[in-house]
Amino acid sequence: MTGLSCVLRGRAGEEMGQESAGIVTSTGTNPPIYTTLKGMGLVNTAFKAEDLLKLRNGNLGIGHTRYSTTGISELQNCQPFVVDTLHGKIAVAHNGELVNASALRKKVMRHGVGLSTSSDSELITQLLALTPPMEELDTPDWVARIKNLMTETPTSYSLLVVYKDVIYAVRDPYGNRPLSIGRLVPISKLHSSGAGEADTEGWVVSSESCSFQSIGAKYYREVQPGEIVQISKNGVKSLSVVPRPEGDPPAFCIFEYVYFARPDSIFEGQMVYTVRQRCGRQLAIEAPTDADVVSTVPESATPAALGYAQQSGLPYVEVLCKNRYVGRTFIQPNTRLRQLGVAKKFGALTDNFAGKRVVLIDDSIVRGNTISPIIKLLKEAGATEVHIRVASPPIRFPCYMGINIPTKEELIANRPEFEDIAGYIGATSVRYLSVEGLVSAVQGGIESRGKDERISTKTARIGHCTACLTGKYPVELEW
Amino acid sequence: MTGLSCVLRGRAGEEMGQESAGIVTSTGTNPPIYTTLKGMGLVNTAFKAEDLLKLRNGNLGIGHTRYSTTGISELQNCQPFVVDTLHGKIAVAHNGELVNASALRKKVMRHGVGLSTSSDSELITQLLALTPPMEELDTPDWVARIKNLMTETPTSYSLLVVYKDVIYAVRDPYGNRPLSIGRLVPISKLHSSGAGEADTEGWVVSSESCSFQSIGAKYYREVQPGEIVQISKNGVKSLSVVPRPEGDPPAFCIFEYVYFARPDSIFEGQMVYTVRQRCGRQLAIEAPTDADVVSTVPESATPAALGYAQQSGLPYVEVLCKNRYVGRTFIQPNTRLRQLGVAKKFGALTDNFAGKRVVLIDDSIVRGNTISPIIKLLKEAGATEVHIRVASPPIRFPCYMGINIPTKEELIANRPEFEDIAGYIGATSVRYLSVEGLVSAVQGGIESRGKDERISTKTARIGHCTACLTGKYPVELEW
Amino acid sequence: MTGLSCVLRGRAGEEMGQESAGIVTSTGTNPPIYTTLKGMGLVNTAFKAEDLLKLRNGNLGIGHTRYSTTGISELQNCQPFVVDTLHGKIAVAHNGELVNASALRKKVMRHGVGLSTSSDSELITQLLALTPPMEELDTPDWVARIKNLMTETPTSYSLLVVYKDVIYAVRDPYGNRPLSIGRLVPISKLHSSGAGEADTEGWVVSSESCSFQSIGAKYYREVQPGEIVQISKNGVKSLSVVPRPEGDPPAFCIFEYVYFARPDSIFEGQMVYTVRQRCGRQLAIEAPTDADVVSTVPESATPAALGYAQQSGLPYVEVLCKNRYVGRTFIQPNTRLRQLGVAKKFGALTDNFAGKRVVLIDDSIVRGNTISPIIKLLKEAGATEVHIRVASPPIRFPCYMGINIPTKEELIANRPEFEDIAGYIGATSVRYLSVEGLVSAVQGGIESRGKDERISTKTARIGHCTACLTGKYPVELEW
Amino acid sequence: MTGLSCVLRGRAGEEMGQESAGIVTSTGTNPPIYTTLKGMGLVNTAFKAEDLLKLRNGNLGIGHTRYSTTGISELQNCQPFVVDTLHGKIAVAHNGELVNASALRKKVMRHGVGLSTSSDSELITQLLALTPPMEELDTPDWVARIKNLMTETPTSYSLLVVYKDVIYAVRDPYGNRPLSIGRLVPISKLHSSGAGEADTEGWVVSSESCSFQSIGAKYYREVQPGEIVQISKNGVKSLSVVPRPEGDPPAFCIFEYVYFARPDSIFEGQMVYTVRQRCGRQLAIEAPTDADVVSTVPESATPAALGYAQQSGLPYVEVLCKNRYVGRTFIQPNTRLRQLGVAKKFGALTDNFAGKRVVLIDDSIVRGNTISPIIKLLKEAGATEVHIRVASPPIRFPCYMGINIPTKEELIANRPEFEDIAGYIGATSVRYLSVEGLVSAVQGGIESRGKDERISTKTARIGHCTACLTGKYPVELEW
Repeated sequence: MTGLSCVLRGRAGEEMGQESAGIVTSTGTNPPIYTTLKGMGLVNTAFKAEDLLKLRNGNLGIGHTRYSTTGISELQNCQPFVVDTLHGKIAVAHNGELVNASALRKKVMRHGVGLSTSSDSELITQLLALTPPMEELDTPDWVARIKNLMTETPTSYSLLVVYKDVIYAVRDPYGNRPLSIGRLVPISKLHSSGAGEADTEGWVVSSESCSFQSIGAKYYREVQPGEIVQISKNGVKSLSVVPRPEGDPPAFCIFEYVYFARPDSIFEGQMVYTVRQRCGRQLAIEAPTDADVVSTVPESATPAALGYAQQSGLPYVEVLCKNRYVGRTFIQPNTRLRQLGVAKKFGALTDNFAGKRVVLIDDSIVRGNTISPIIKLLKEAGATEVHIRVASPPIRFPCYMGINIPTKEELIANRPEFEDIAGYIGATSVRYLSVEGLVSAVQGGIESRGKDERISTKTARIGHCTACLTGKYPVELEW
Repeated sequence: MTGLSCVLRGRAGEEMGQESAGIVTSTGTNPPIYTTLKGMGLVNTAFKAEDLLKLRNGNLGIGHTRYSTTGISELQNCQPFVVDTLHGKIAVAHNGELVNASALRKKVMRHGVGLSTSSDSELITQLLALTPPMEELDTPDWVARIKNLMTETPTSYSLLVVYKDVIYAVRDPYGNRPLSIGRLVPISKLHSSGAGEADTEGWVVSSESCSFQSIGAKYYREVQPGEIVQISKNGVKSLSVVPRPEGDPPAFCIFEYVYFARPDSIFEGQMVYTVRQRCGRQLAIEAPTDADVVSTVPESATPAALGYAQQSGLPYVEVLCKNRYVGRTFIQPNTRLRQLGVAKKFGALTDNFAGKRVVLIDDSIVRGNTISPIIKLLKEAGATEVHIRVASPPIRFPCYMGINIPTKEELIANRPEFEDIAGYIGATSVRYLSVEGLVSAVQGGIESRGKDERISTKTARIGHCTACLTGKYPVELEW
Repeated sequence: MTGLSCVLRGRAGEEMGQESAGIVTSTGTNPPIYTTLKGMGLVNTAFKAEDLLKLRNGNLGIGHTRYSTTGISELQNCQPFVVDTLHGKIAVAHNGELVNASALRKKVMRHGVGLSTSSDSELITQLLALTPPMEELDTPDWVARIKNLMTETPTSYSLLVVYKDVIYAVRDPYGNRPLSIGRLVPISKLHSSGAGEADTEGWVVSSESCSFQSIGAKYYREVQPGEIVQISKNGVKSLSVVPRPEGDPPAFCIFEYVYFARPDSIFEGQMVYTVRQRCGRQLAIEAPTDADVVSTVPESATPAALGYAQQSGLPYVEVLCKNRYVGRTFIQPNTRLRQLGVAKKFGALTDNFAGKRVVLIDDSIVRGNTISPIIKLLKEAGATEVHIRVASPPIRFPCYMGINIPTKEELIANRPEFEDIAGYIGATSVRYLSVEGLVSAVQGGIESRGKDERISTKTARIGHCTACLTGKYPVELEW
Repeated sequence: MTGLSCVLRGRAGEEMGQESAGIVTSTGTNPPIYTTLKGMGLVNTAFKAEDLLKLRNGNLGIGHTRYSTTGISELQNCQPFVVDTLHGKIAVAHNGELVNASALRKKVMRHGVGLSTSSDSELITQLLALTPPMEELDTPDWVARIKNLMTETPTSYSLLVVYKDVIYAVRDPYGNRPLSIGRLVPISKLHSSGAGEADTEGWVVSSESCSFQSIGAKYYREVQPGEIVQISKNGVKSLSVVPRPEGDPPAFCIFEYVYFARPDSIFEGQMVYTVRQRCGRQLAIEAPTDADVVSTVPESATPAALGYAQQSGLPYVEVLCKNRYVGRTFIQPNTRLRQLGVAKKFGALTDNFAGKRVVLIDDSIVRGNTISPIIKLLKEAGATEVHIRVASPPIRFPCYMGINIPTKEELIANRPEFEDIAGYIGATSVRYLSVEGLVSAVQGGIESRGKDERISTKTARIGHCTACLTGKYPVELEW
């Protein structure tokens, strides 16, 4: 591609299996030619080499990787969703979950539209197509239609819309889901060896800025809560910011910092890795431990563990070696192997902790059945004490904004066992980071960073969605 | 399944590659549970065994096999098309092509509906969902909506609609595409060995009645042109017949007799095989030949060849042996094999024709490039003369009603070479059946059959679409 | 390829599933580079396009398609078998089954050779490599080694051996399995359109001559029983004929004529189709029937049915229409469909036989459970009588020479039901061709054909293996 | 399985792609029934669930995973290799490469054995089968045959041989490749929850002891250099130790410690992780650096980096975040992405090093083209200096003992660029660990560990193969 390209990535958290991927490109010519690829599985199995070649003529495009949250696992539900309208095709990809999807589905169906999937993407395309009436002669005012959509549904979505030679990048008024803009650096500037005709300038948009480096782009800025950004061959242009109801703060998902995002992604001007390290430091202040070594459940808890070690002064060591070849899909031919469970995934680095008291940092505890066999493993290999320190507060409430959290009943924090969680999981002691500690670790970094002059900060407020921890949802939910 | 099941099959003509297949079943319970399977390729590769098991709870269902006519070859275009409406899901499968699809697409898009595929099936579902307005409290009057659809588009379609516990089987007012009803015979009546609990009674609907025998059903009757038949656990009930414009005869596709249908299918009370045999007899009358033997291009021309032999008194022999293992998909690694072309598909049965004058019957000649190497093959193997007799008239006009006929320019009958077609293809002589001969061979059988008392014949008229032969389309086409 | 190419095909009888395919090519250069492809399934699924491209540099090669007779269905057992010897690689493919394989396996293992497969091909390569001792400096005398092999095992095999730039084509002394030589015709002689650089001259060898036409080759001659033919860029050269024991006639498998071979193949100077037609005529003489029409179980019995019709004067009609899309692999999701069995495979062409007495010709009856539902189908559709006439004698004995025949106990001709076979299968009457009738139908054609001057016929004798019909095996079997 | 099971694993180093896997089990009954599974790709794609079920009756078995070193990537070369001998089947799997394979191949081929693959496994099976002559009546003395093999080829191999109900585990006299024995712990002892009938006791053998934990086994001991261990239902029994030539020390591959092995494996009584950490400490002594932070190229260099940090007193931080989803097989549709190369694999954790002087520890540098873009990445992201410290000496010589090292010409240490390696790769400075430093880091741990009473240490000597670093091969190589 020699122009724009946007990728709206789902999360790549360890426990989530990517289930499908889709790409739509447009030539941006008049009329535009759209090319669509969709496939099941990880990106590198979902598409075949010969299919990817079909995209060569695209000058702009959007992609999507889908994880199983709601909706059946079918190719049909795979984004982007493309529909033909009176004025030509539009393609839509989104990340998130519309809180009032059910009411909106009824609305479009009452208008006489049949919905062929259970996905919010189709719902969004039909809402965009629906009103106001399309007249045959004029180009539709897509921006007005997008604004209209944003007033009908407050959250939770980041959205990419392709129409002819333009991409609209949109974040919901609460900014619940992330969306970042990057700038493609000409390859000749990346490498001294000349890049020749394959060189590219342009813009990219992504859920996570970590993906920019992989394609040779530099982080430019975030799409702001409520903002509609137009990306075309003329560059990036902020078209509008749809406001939240008076008094409501933004509500960016705090669990992006805690767990979902890759550590090298940037949100609100700060690197996720650094926030996690601060959480570890804060945890060391809130929950100090009399122990010999600090370690991590690799790999996601490592920044917090290093932060804890720095703050506490205890030495950081590795106690677990991850077996990269044990996948979710491995066939377990007998009961014995099934019973071994998580022990298959980790090897104990005995020399580093035998005879010692271990502080083991984990990023979060959801169901509690992963950490238990790890503790058992460490104790059998010679740890005299195993203190669990969790770099986030207990999860107690479901998420209705696109994150797949177990039911309230399954969450360990809501079960009787939580009373004696240390006993239940076999730990010497268990402590969590407080909600206030987490919020201060997250928001402290934003304030200390100063202002990015490219973003109007006059009205900028700081605020995060902590609903899964506190039950305070950013908008009132109708059922 | 223990109730109804309907299959709307596309054609299985030799040169058409089946490209996708789909099935939707409903439990017929309240609320109904729908199960959908779709896959690319032939039916037995499109579905996996474990997927078919998912259909076990279905009590009624519709299926579809798709051939590439229009529309890109994508799973997305695969029928049946299922949409959710205010009153629940409907599933639609159709055979044919709406002559005014373009105008109807504009109509629904003007209403604010985005169309996600290029298929007529989606268009039909959205037309059914669209008007009149859906009220929340009542069950929609699907029959009124289907009638409304039929007044908006006169032809060409046979249609199956599933809603909850009912299937509607519909044929367009011109009856251009076939649709037959069969009755499932309890297996205990088919085999003396008891059938036990797996036994089934019920109804089936199919494009071609030949499929009934494969599933142990008996031919019952055809859906009449314009008829809406309701099939439910209460049996088969004719609900309505939407009339054609005053004076218009029905227009069942005459090429179903000539080429598309399997020879053991029944249309208008007569077996296709027998009609083809009559075409061969008529051809012998119209185009007698001074020759030694009559033969066929296997396998579709065999009934006509036997008919020609019977009428002419010439002996019938086989001259070509078909190589069943040469498929469309075989990889041809070098130029040499590509050049050999059709010779790979047939072996010459030399002893039967060496030194003899051969009459070779073909069912139709479209582009003229298949018959030419066959003639060369026979001559090289020793045939002294090869007279081509074609059991249908030359195809001169495109079909806009669901049949994939080459462009006017590609049709041999419209090209200069047709002037000396025998010279062009290397035959000793070439003769075609006349349009009148074909029509009389087809319609003669209908008249002589007498009346089926189950069908009201008061207003029954006979008429066939011969548009591809004569250019006389059943309805005026708008562009 | 621009030189030699040999294909040793297994049979393509309708009921046999091809299970694997292999190709080995040699550049014929010094040193030669061999390329091997093997895959499971039919030829066109076993190999991928990109793999076939790897063969482009081969100037000679052999291929093999394997059917399940003995040996487990594994890629490992797939031919050709290639081994490295002191003097370079040899590749071996064979058709048939060594009658004394068990003793020969012991012999090579006693010499200290481990055998990695259960296939005769590996056994043959190790026997060729084994003795006499290989000296380092000289080229081994492969022809002497092949002769040695032929004295150690009398039958049943046709063999292709590749070494550097030579192919040896070998038929066992009894000639039990077929092997024919064809000559590649330059494409420029096949088509007036110039063929350019892709053109090819050369030689091909095949189990069945029918394959020659598919690749633009002409039938040249058969490899004679016991003959070793050398094929190289210098052409075809007969090197030696290993004799049978004094007094033993040749023993070409008579079932190649009856059932296995494609009808357009040539054996012993006569076309298989014509032999089958003669069998039908002979059957009409031996087993005349008072009936109205003669028909066939399509497609293999058709030549015999036409022969019966010609001899008897009864009209030939088609009564069954084959459903090409019902394959072995079709998934049968419920009991009902399994019970329908063979009825799924055939449609009844009622008009041709309703109210009539039918003579139905089949080529052979092995287990008797295919013909029974066909008879039921015809009777239910209106046939007043169904007389089965089988164009071969009952099979009563197992084959130890490469043909997969059921155990003695499974053969209908050895079971009590055979006493009243007509009653058992529901036929009005059943008659078989006599062994003498079959032999005369086969051998009559050889005698009447005269001599092929390319083959020394001084010592030519005629003889066929009828072991499965008579129990008289060509060689005494040791166990 | 309820008895013995052995796995001979190839390495799982990051840059090596596993290419095939195989398993052979034996029922251990009389006669034994062997089951073989082989497949291409990683273990969890190579085998299907239904295939693994076939192994259920096996009571002992061996497995193998193969990486591409020599030999073409074909299923045929996949181990274990099973051959039928006069006395029944033996199955062989090995890790390593016979230094005199070429001479041994000639030997068996001169005996008249054809070799069907290029793999050493087949060669070993044929050598075992070959001599002394097999007599029909007696059981062959496999131990004598294995000893005979060990005198014919001194190194490099670890070997597993299955015959009936016994597994022989063998390490070559130099002990070049590792082989460890583990004991299956009854699951009831692992988990308090009762294990029921699926419980298992028994023995396992593996190239790397890290695999024991995954299947619930405990490390027992190493097979000693030259030792033949018999494993059966009667337990583990040392049968024999074949000595090295007088004066030769053992030669265990030192690169197993440096790079190949998983850090939680145990060799010579010490954990690999700890050895690597010691290498890092030694490197800090040999090559101290004036810098701000120490970091790692994740993940293999992390133990050495932590060791360097501990010894030097510099703080350990993470500077790179690994992108787990960028695989070898990802399709790179355009030049741009190919040029980005290694940058796709790592994200920079800028906050940890911007404005700082970084010591970056790598485990080894082979070609030098991986580290270069990483240095560029760090510098562009703000590192003021990047000092590369390599925890092993430069690789200068090829390995002929099973490790795939580039040709001498490709090794960066042998190229002119090595003169100014820092300039070439863009580093501020580059230093390597010395050979002496590496050897002392490795051997220091062995001495300090004391004696394992299960192993006779009277004649125990310490020695390692450093051929790739020093050119001193354990045995003289013939060509």
